[in-house]
Amino acid sequence: MFNIAVAQSGGPTCAINASLVGVYKEALKEPSIDAVFGSVNGLEGIIQNHMINLKSMILTNDDMELLKQTPSTVLGSCRYKLPDWEEDEEVYKQIVSTLKQRNIGAFLYIGGNDSMDTVNKLSEYFKSISLDIKVIGIPKTIDNDLCITDHTPGFGSAAKYVATTLKEITRDSIVYSIPSVTIVEIMGRHAGWLTASSAVLHAMGETAPHLVYVPEAKFSLEGFLKDVRQELSKHKAVIVAVSEGIEVPDGVQSGVVDNFGHKYLSGIGKYLEETVRNEIGCKVRSIELNVMQRCSSHLGSKTDIDESECIGAAGVRAALNGSTGKVMVFKRVSDMPYTVTIDSADASKIANQEKFLPKKYINSAGNNIDDRALEYFMPLIQGELNLVMEHGVPKHFAIHESVLK
Amino acid sequence: MFNIAVAQSGGPTCAINASLVGVYKEALKEPSIDAVFGSVNGLEGIIQNHMINLKSMILTNDDMELLKQTPSTVLGSCRYKLPDWEEDEEVYKQIVSTLKQRNIGAFLYIGGNDSMDTVNKLSEYFKSISLDIKVIGIPKTIDNDLCITDHTPGFGSAAKYVATTLKEITRDSIVYSIPSVTIVEIMGRHAGWLTASSAVLHAMGETAPHLVYVPEAKFSLEGFLKDVRQELSKHKAVIVAVSEGIEVPDGVQSGVVDNFGHKYLSGIGKYLEETVRNEIGCKVRSIELNVMQRCSSHLGSKTDIDESECIGAAGVRAALNGSTGKVMVFKRVSDMPYTVTIDSADASKIANQEKFLPKKYINSAGNNIDDRALEYFMPLIQGELNLVMEHGVPKHFAIHESVLK
Repeated sequence: MFNIAVAQSGGPTCAINASLVGVYKEALKEPSIDAVFGSVNGLEGIIQNHMINLKSMILTNDDMELLKQTPSTVLGSCRYKLPDWEEDEEVYKQIVSTLKQRNIGAFLYIGGNDSMDTVNKLSEYFKSISLDIKVIGIPKTIDNDLCITDHTPGFGSAAKYVATTLKEITRDSIVYSIPSVTIVEIMGRHAGWLTASSAVLHAMGETAPHLVYVPEAKFSLEGFLKDVRQELSKHKAVIVAVSEGIEVPDGVQSGVVDNFGHKYLSGIGKYLEETVRNEIGCKVRSIELNVMQRCSSHLGSKTDIDESECIGAAGVRAALNGSTGKVMVFKRVSDMPYTVTIDSADASKIANQEKFLPKKYINSAGNNIDDRALEYFMPLIQGELNLVMEHGVPKHFAIHESVLK
Repeated sequence: MFNIAVAQSGGPTCAINASLVGVYKEALKEPSIDAVFGSVNGLEGIIQNHMINLKSMILTNDDMELLKQTPSTVLGSCRYKLPDWEEDEEVYKQIVSTLKQRNIGAFLYIGGNDSMDTVNKLSEYFKSISLDIKVIGIPKTIDNDLCITDHTPGFGSAAKYVATTLKEITRDSIVYSIPSVTIVEIMGRHAGWLTASSAVLHAMGETAPHLVYVPEAKFSLEGFLKDVRQELSKHKAVIVAVSEGIEVPDGVQSGVVDNFGHKYLSGIGKYLEETVRNEIGCKVRSIELNVMQRCSSHLGSKTDIDESECIGAAGVRAALNGSTGKVMVFKRVSDMPYTVTIDSADASKIANQEKFLPKKYINSAGNNIDDRALEYFMPLIQGELNLVMEHGVPKHFAIHESVLK
């Protein structure tokens, strides 16, 4: 008999708690597993031995269903970067101390590519000291930029939010008789997956988004203004989707000065808005989808949430089968009917790597998404959650904030 | 036999198309009404005789159901302010020409308090020239700031969006172990109804929003910083809801200078974010709910959408009963069970007036909402639409943009 540990890390998504449910449910089925300990605030909870027996927190099947519709990380998160153990072994010793004290046989880490670095380092360290604790990574990120896996848990729900919201913004933008430009800024510092996913609207008869700019395509202000003028000649209300991470010349994004004389980071959307206002002079506005694109569980993709639960469960089975230093990944078998299997890959091949939008998904002008990308994106946003509501708003799994303190 | 005209005006909401459906359905039932003409872009369509026979646009019952889940104004909108007819009669003559040519017996105008000014002026003018065309206003605004009516169509859906999103942002904000402040900027230039409605979360066991600032309460930066410091001593993640229209000293909202050296209007949220960063120094971010709070039909309140349809229908009946220069209003009979009736009021008493949040709904410190307000807000956000989805996103009523050109 042994226990397992699970932690959540990195930026929130709608699907991280579903993966936690997957881990917990699968562990409950396994006679050789005694308890599941949730680490508070990612790896920090293990370092500080701040862990919660999930049996005392997740009491019923209804709790598990609520968790699957609750955004963000119920166990808290961290942005902790583990040092190399050759340089600083102290923190590794603390981790080993906690894990041994709690009789942990496997540690499941749900997170992005930083967390997969942790999975890699910890598994290597444990091997080096001949400690038999399996370490398995469960991917998550709305950025969809992890290598090897077909897509990441959390991405589908974010894409469903982006597509739905862009469609509603399009309805909102078209109402007046004067021409207008609406610029929607979407998350993605280096990879344009989420911004590109907005093009699924093209498969539904929408002409919007009329322009899509991703970091993988070269961007110029001159080209942008030419594109906008051209679209304005065809459409009354031009909708532009832009990744927060596109590169504009001379670091404009930090050029705005506030009342106190301090510079602050203004988003690319606001910058392009100002450019259109000054250079074209038409009605223009910018909209930042902000954290809503990662936490709007009320618009969760059922495909995403179900898969996120499955990949959490698969992580437990992989550990039981003796795997360590591995990250669970999706392999797409077919687009239609959409079928995926779950496999695993070496954490070292995923850690600290980024996967970019393939060139073939971007049109030749570099200002929109090719229709070939749609069969990739479409299956990921399908299906809706059967939300439990309370007093007119979605019910969330409730954990008192003092538990996480 | 006569025809009726209907138009939509002002800023979009999730409920304006439901009121259009209410008008259209009720007119179809009435043997004395021949056709219903929809005016394109509000009053502008009547002035320019740009009108659509709704029978050629809304073909099936499914179309009507889709319209009820489609945000914004399917007939377009305008911000046109009708001059006094004593000063400029020309435009009135154009309106009369269109209405006579199309044999209009009643004109229903769905809009905010500017539109109710139009209802008032047109009905007075028609009386003065002894023209028997009834003019009836159907209210709409997410701001909920119209007089006499208990609440406005469109407000409930916006409030449901704000409450749901604030709850999800709260989950997103609590994940890290460090203290943080999240400032959510909500629409409402003069009245704080929508911002105040976020306090419904208190009825669901949430401590957030911890601070709520509305234009009806005096605001000072010193008081704000003191409030934030106090809440940070009690909660790790402090959530602040703030109306875009709160008054801050010396016009700070226009103090930000961009790259081109031009000033632009930065929102109050961004300004307060900077203030917290500079004066308190903790992790802080601001989020603007932007147009999503008025166009997120996927989160429509069933109560709101159903009522919006009913009040449109009631407008047609009022016109048939000989009313003119009236605005349809809700009268609340009881909070629990929630019951409203529909009545009418003189447009002159609603036009150009604003209704503010009552003092008793604001706490004594002026930095949050009193629980007494919750029984007012709660019924308005109840119920969900049974959304028709298509390819993973809500389906909208489709009208080709060329029709509205």
